[in-house]
Amino acid sequence: MQGTIRIIGIDPGLRRTGWGIIETLGNSLRFVASGTVTSDGDMNLASRLCQLHDGLADIVHAHRPDEAAVEQTFVNKDATATLKLGQARGIAMLVPARAGLPVAEYAPNAVKKAVIGVGHGDKQQIQMMLKVLMPKVEFKGADAADALAIAICHAHNRSSLAGRLAKLAG
Amino acid sequence: MQGTIRIIGIDPGLRRTGWGIIETLGNSLRFVASGTVTSDGDMNLASRLCQLHDGLADIVHAHRPDEAAVEQTFVNKDATATLKLGQARGIAMLVPARAGLPVAEYAPNAVKKAVIGVGHGDKQQIQMMLKVLMPKVEFKGADAADALAIAICHAHNRSSLAGRLAKLAG
Repeated sequence: MQGTIRIIGIDPGLRRTGWGIIETLGNSLRFVASGTVTSDGDMNLASRLCQLHDGLADIVHAHRPDEAAVEQTFVNKDATATLKLGQARGIAMLVPARAGLPVAEYAPNAVKKAVIGVGHGDKQQIQMMLKVLMPKVEFKGADAADALAIAICHAHNRSSLAGRLAKLAG
Repeated sequence: MQGTIRIIGIDPGLRRTGWGIIETLGNSLRFVASGTVTSDGDMNLASRLCQLHDGLADIVHAHRPDEAAVEQTFVNKDATATLKLGQARGIAMLVPARAGLPVAEYAPNAVKKAVIGVGHGDKQQIQMMLKVLMPKVEFKGADAADALAIAICHAHNRSSLAGRLAKLAG
């Protein structure tokens, strides 16, 4: 449909990277697909990064999103975990960027605020709201659900930005 | 030359990623090329990761190394810096792996030990030893020098491994 924007949300992780694709037209949201790309923990790091790259590249090629949104990694106190996440996140940002998509970043509390209205809340609340916002939604696992929430966050932010720009222009 | 192995060493960083290529045959080392791939700090993260990817992919395509070695990132107490480095490091490992190269990882002290004989030492000592080990070496900046040191570390480790395997077979 004209004006429809297809968004891929990505929740990066070395073992599991969640992805979710939605379409937005004005204030309406439509579920398209979701899933998880996994890497084999028995393989070396370089091979695992290739697995994430190839898996995400296949998804982008198959679903042809217009824009991408990636979660801003939570920086915790465990530097080794932060480094692993950083490596996966580098791949999660590279793949859509190389496909020519603009890539937005959102902090976890911005994602929660967009989906459940407040900046804190558990995974169950997010998953329940996904079903309210998109009755036909399907996801397996928390990573795919989080990725859909990231896509919704981007849909809200881009439309409110478009609204503000239209007001300024008017 | 038959038996010659061409190695690319990579010292990853978001702003500057150093690379250095050497050839090794038995115990001999030969300098091939070195340089730095930079990303534009004024651009967004996804675009910067693309710049690093494309720059490194060009180097691998032009010089056709057989094996790659990447420095194991120093995990410091600054989580934001660790995350940035992780993202650049993900790209630095992905590019050679996608080109079909085996990718080894070495800790900074292993690199120093291979080049200057001990696990600690400053950048001046490393750069001086590079000139001793490879009289024709050329490098601009510490990142390219570090990348050459990483390549030498891999040359030492792979030949000592080959020696041990040959003894076992004999």
